[in-house]
Amino acid sequence: MVAADNIQKTPEGAKFDLIAYLKERQQLCEDALDKAIPIRYPEKIYEAMRYSLMAGGKRLRPILCLASCEMVGGTIEMAMPTACAVEMLHTMSLIHDDLPAMDNDDYRRGKLTNHKVYGEDIAILAGDGLLAYAFEYVVTHTQDVPLERVVRVIAHLGRATGATGLVGGQVLDLESEGKTDISLETLNFIHNHKTGALLEACVVCGGILAGASSEDEHRLSRYSRNIGLAFQIIDDILDITATQEQLGKTAGKDQKAQKVTYPSLWGLQESQAQAQQLIEDACRELEPFGEKALPLKALAHFITSRQC
Amino acid sequence: MVAADNIQKTPEGAKFDLIAYLKERQQLCEDALDKAIPIRYPEKIYEAMRYSLMAGGKRLRPILCLASCEMVGGTIEMAMPTACAVEMLHTMSLIHDDLPAMDNDDYRRGKLTNHKVYGEDIAILAGDGLLAYAFEYVVTHTQDVPLERVVRVIAHLGRATGATGLVGGQVLDLESEGKTDISLETLNFIHNHKTGALLEACVVCGGILAGASSEDEHRLSRYSRNIGLAFQIIDDILDITATQEQLGKTAGKDQKAQKVTYPSLWGLQESQAQAQQLIEDACRELEPFGEKALPLKALAHFITSRQC
Repeated sequence: MVAADNIQKTPEGAKFDLIAYLKERQQLCEDALDKAIPIRYPEKIYEAMRYSLMAGGKRLRPILCLASCEMVGGTIEMAMPTACAVEMLHTMSLIHDDLPAMDNDDYRRGKLTNHKVYGEDIAILAGDGLLAYAFEYVVTHTQDVPLERVVRVIAHLGRATGATGLVGGQVLDLESEGKTDISLETLNFIHNHKTGALLEACVVCGGILAGASSEDEHRLSRYSRNIGLAFQIIDDILDITATQEQLGKTAGKDQKAQKVTYPSLWGLQESQAQAQQLIEDACRELEPFGEKALPLKALAHFITSRQC
Repeated sequence: MVAADNIQKTPEGAKFDLIAYLKERQQLCEDALDKAIPIRYPEKIYEAMRYSLMAGGKRLRPILCLASCEMVGGTIEMAMPTACAVEMLHTMSLIHDDLPAMDNDDYRRGKLTNHKVYGEDIAILAGDGLLAYAFEYVVTHTQDVPLERVVRVIAHLGRATGATGLVGGQVLDLESEGKTDISLETLNFIHNHKTGALLEACVVCGGILAGASSEDEHRLSRYSRNIGLAFQIIDDILDITATQEQLGKTAGKDQKAQKVTYPSLWGLQESQAQAQQLIEDACRELEPFGEKALPLKALAHFITSRQC
């Protein structure tokens, strides 16, 4: 009964085959991303953008965006351009974060980082190119959605990416490096902005595209903020417990950099418990959506159980 | 008769006080930009974004955007958020172009470059922050304009900024450095993308916001492509003839880097003549707008007569 292992039981007992779901959705996203950026002249910049975009991440962000749109009553097609855009924005942040002037990383997703392959200049420009294209792509490719919703998606994506989002989180993260007296408040600020803001935008924008009510939007926002923080706690735990091979990137980086992390504040066991609590809180927000919430609930549980 | 010096006569003989116009519009843009980015926590990133944004450029791009909108029948208010956005995008490109991994410049507009003051990491992030905020700002601050136009502005700004615009131009510019056999075709590609695309977006988006017809849009596009190329030719000429004090940035850079420029291909005199011809062609496109075209025509002539 191999197939039975794929069936994840949510605490409510409803069955949902997350593995099959993820596999199908990942393929949809891969295909859409592949089509989104054709190679033109000057080829090098498109190749550099595609190198990191197509490096085979989990596609968790676009999948969350699609799932949220469907849960609220929309279609995959309505959300796919935005799903691609959030992955472009996420990839942009990885390329720039990996630069020598920032985290100076040689490997990402098991492959050489963008600047190691294309040089720092092209890596900076590839990030800029993805950042600009994400916004362009949403407005030029979203179909059958009222413009009022499209415009709100652009606003959300901008907020999630700029100084009010991941750029702001990265700044504070850089400033906190080497400091051993970082407060829980600061740590939360960093992660709510660096990781949380874009995750929230994925989920909330999926809902907006489907025409979510204001109350639904708030539920989606609370759900995603909880899973965002849980995601980061698990990331910190994995940095300690997983191998480089499992992670596809340098392991033990945080400890080496003497970074304050959730495990360094709480210990491993308490960190795991906090992540679990956040996931349960997240799922509670989705109760009003009934059976339709199964994918987003399963995705939330997947976050705490992932090994990489 | 000091005032008379300020009155520029267009070839058609119509009088227009460009100096007074520029002064007034520059102040309007300074005020709008100043308000657009208030300083919040974490302060450093907002300060870095503001440092370059408020470094006192000519504000030619936002002024072109406002002028185009007014010429087509719109108001300053309709175009001001987009005018601010194009200046944010332009500033982003300057911050990133100045980085050590790119042109490695220490001075810009007579001040230390962003990374010289804030460090490379913050400079990269300040550029990213401005890039994301530009799109957000247009959709959150544009008022009394149909959303269909706002969405088209986002698409234009994205195209002008990304790999199809200034990012693509910068890539080819970097690849061409040190090469002495660059063709006129390649040189035109570089400048049409690196400088031209955003200038075109300024003018065309101003028109779109005012509800320009498709034919008017094409006229605006041809006008701006001509002035964009003229602008670059004059830039190349000034790199040879002007002093560092006049330019506010390192002079003679192109020659030192053995860059192929218009004067290196055509000589100074022919370059000047070509720029003049482009400006005349540009102004001809605006004939159907009559008196209302005076500001854009005067701005075109200003480009060839500028000393810095």
